[in-house]
Amino acid sequence: MTAGYAIGVDLGGTNLRVAAMRDDGVLLEKHVRPTDASDRSSRDVLQSLCDAVHSVMLRLESAGPLRGIGVGVPGILESGAGVLRVSPSLPGWRDVPVREELERRLGTAVVIENDANLAAVGERWRGAGRGDQDLCMLTLGTGVGGAVLRSGRPWRGANGMAGELGHMTLRPDGPLCACGARGCLERYASAAAVRRMAREAVEQGRMPSRIATLDDVEPETTARHVHELAVAGDPAAVEVFREVGVALGIALAGLVNALDLPTYIVGGGLSCAWDAFSPALFDELRRRSFVYVAVEGRTRIVRAEMPHDAGLFGACRLVLDAANVP
Amino acid sequence: MTAGYAIGVDLGGTNLRVAAMRDDGVLLEKHVRPTDASDRSSRDVLQSLCDAVHSVMLRLESAGPLRGIGVGVPGILESGAGVLRVSPSLPGWRDVPVREELERRLGTAVVIENDANLAAVGERWRGAGRGDQDLCMLTLGTGVGGAVLRSGRPWRGANGMAGELGHMTLRPDGPLCACGARGCLERYASAAAVRRMAREAVEQGRMPSRIATLDDVEPETTARHVHELAVAGDPAAVEVFREVGVALGIALAGLVNALDLPTYIVGGGLSCAWDAFSPALFDELRRRSFVYVAVEGRTRIVRAEMPHDAGLFGACRLVLDAANVP
Repeated sequence: MTAGYAIGVDLGGTNLRVAAMRDDGVLLEKHVRPTDASDRSSRDVLQSLCDAVHSVMLRLESAGPLRGIGVGVPGILESGAGVLRVSPSLPGWRDVPVREELERRLGTAVVIENDANLAAVGERWRGAGRGDQDLCMLTLGTGVGGAVLRSGRPWRGANGMAGELGHMTLRPDGPLCACGARGCLERYASAAAVRRMAREAVEQGRMPSRIATLDDVEPETTARHVHELAVAGDPAAVEVFREVGVALGIALAGLVNALDLPTYIVGGGLSCAWDAFSPALFDELRRRSFVYVAVEGRTRIVRAEMPHDAGLFGACRLVLDAANVP
Repeated sequence: MTAGYAIGVDLGGTNLRVAAMRDDGVLLEKHVRPTDASDRSSRDVLQSLCDAVHSVMLRLESAGPLRGIGVGVPGILESGAGVLRVSPSLPGWRDVPVREELERRLGTAVVIENDANLAAVGERWRGAGRGDQDLCMLTLGTGVGGAVLRSGRPWRGANGMAGELGHMTLRPDGPLCACGARGCLERYASAAAVRRMAREAVEQGRMPSRIATLDDVEPETTARHVHELAVAGDPAAVEVFREVGVALGIALAGLVNALDLPTYIVGGGLSCAWDAFSPALFDELRRRSFVYVAVEGRTRIVRAEMPHDAGLFGACRLVLDAANVP
C-alpha cells in the first residue's frame, strides 16, 4: 500500500459529498451537505465545494501526503478541458470551466469526471462490480446517470460524452425532460419522476395528500417518503414503483440486446427501493430482451452495494490510479 | 497482395447472396437467389447455399487457392459454436448448427458471423466507414440488424449476442414483434414495417389499392414500390417514410447519447430510400439527443455505400484477415 490519501467529491443536484480515503479503501472522512444548486450560482457552489475540501485537508494534515482530488459532476462534460457543458441536474450551469475554477481556488491539480462513470468505477472497486472488467451502471438519483466500463475503464466515446443512458427515449410522446426531449428514461426512473408520479396520484385522490406538502423539498426526500408508503402497502405508491420498474426493464432490455455485457448495476439513492421496483423490472426485461432470455441467466442485473457513496469511492480510485502511474 | 480469393455468403431472410473476391476487394463473382425461407426447411436452405458455393468454386478453379468461406446469418448466434439460436428473419430456425452443417457438406472450414457485424466490417473496408476504428451500423432489410465496431472489430458482448439494435423498444405498446416484444425499432424501420404501414394506409383508403396486391411478395419488393410512390409524391407513401425516419431518429438519439461514437451508418436495402426518410431522422435526432447537439456536427450519420453487398464484403474481409494471421 502506498502512503497518503485521496479526496473524492460528488457534486450532485441534491447533495455535495466529500470523502477522504486511503489506497486500501479505508474511509478517513466523509461529509454531506445540501448543494442548494437552485438558489445559488455555480460560483457559490464551487466555493462551498472548496471550503469542504479545505477543511478535510486541514484535519488530515497528519495522514500523509494528499495524492489527488477527484470530482464527479453530473451532465455533459468535456473531459479533456474539464468544462461542464450542460447539466439537467444543475439548472443554469452552462459551459462552466469546473476544473480550472477548482484548481485556481485549491492551488492543486484536480481530476474531473462524469459522476456516473465514477459510480461505476467505485462499484467495481468495492461494490457489486468486483471482478467485472466490463459492466454497465445506471444511477438513479435526482436524475438518471449512466456509464459503461470496458476493460475496467469508462467508455468516454468520441467526444467524452458517452453513457447518457438516462436520456434514452422510453415513450416518444411522454413528459418533457430537462434535456429538451420527451419521455426519457429519467422521466420515469429518477427521484424527480417518483415525485411527479406521486403528485399526479395525490391530485387524482389516489394517494394520501400529506405527500403533496413535500412538493417544496428535494425530490430524493419525497421519493423516500413515497417508498415508505409503498412498503406500508399503499396501492398508489406501490404502483409508482411498479412504473419505475417497468421503465428500467424496458431500458435494460434495450441495453442487454445492444451491448450483451455480463453485469448491469442499478445504483443511486433510489436503488434503495430495489425490492419495490425490481419485480416489475425483471418481468419487463424477460418480456423484451430475447438476448437476456437466450443466455439463460448469464446476465447479472444487480443493485449497487453503495447507493450513495459509489461515486466517492470512484473519485478516489481514479486519482489513486493516476498517481500510481510511474 | 496475397494470392487466391475468399467466398462470402449473406444468408438473408429474403435473398441468399454469394460472392467471391480477392484480397484487394476486386469482385470475381456474385450470385443472388431467393432464400425461400418460409417454404423450405433449414436443411434445404443450407443445401442451396452449399450448391451455390460449390458452383462458384468450380468456376474459379484457376483463380488461385480458396482462402476461406465466411457466412453471415441474421439473428442470435452463438459465435463460438456457430449455432444460430433463433432468428426473427428465418422463421422456424432454432438452435441450428449452421457451421457444423456447412463444414460437413463443403468439406472445409467455414467462419460464421452475425450478418450486421459483417455489413459493418464491409462498410469499414470499402464503404462509408473507411478510416473509422469505431462505428455503429444499422441494417434495414426484412428486419433491422445492428452492429458496433470497436477498434475495427465487432463488439460481440459477453455471450456473442451484442448488437441487436433492431429490438430496442421504441413504443412500449406498439405492434408485436417477431422477437416476442412490442414496439421494437424493427416494427417501424424495416421493409416489413413499410409493408405493414402501407397495408394500413390502403385499408384506410389513403394509398392506391394496387399496393395491396403486393401483399404476397417479399417485404423488400413492397417497400421498393412504396418508395416509388413516395418519390412520385403520394402523400400516404411520403408519410410512411417520414415514420421510418422518426423511428430511426429516436433510436439513433438513444445510441448517440449512450455510445458517442464518431460514425453511424444506415445500410440494408431500405437505405436506398435515404432521401425519403433522412429529413425526419435528423429532425428527430436533433430534438432528442443533447449529445448530438452539444458536439455540433462532429457525429457522422451517413447512408451505407453498399446497401446490398456490404455483408458480402465483410464476410470476405473476415476470412482474409483470419487467413493472414501467421
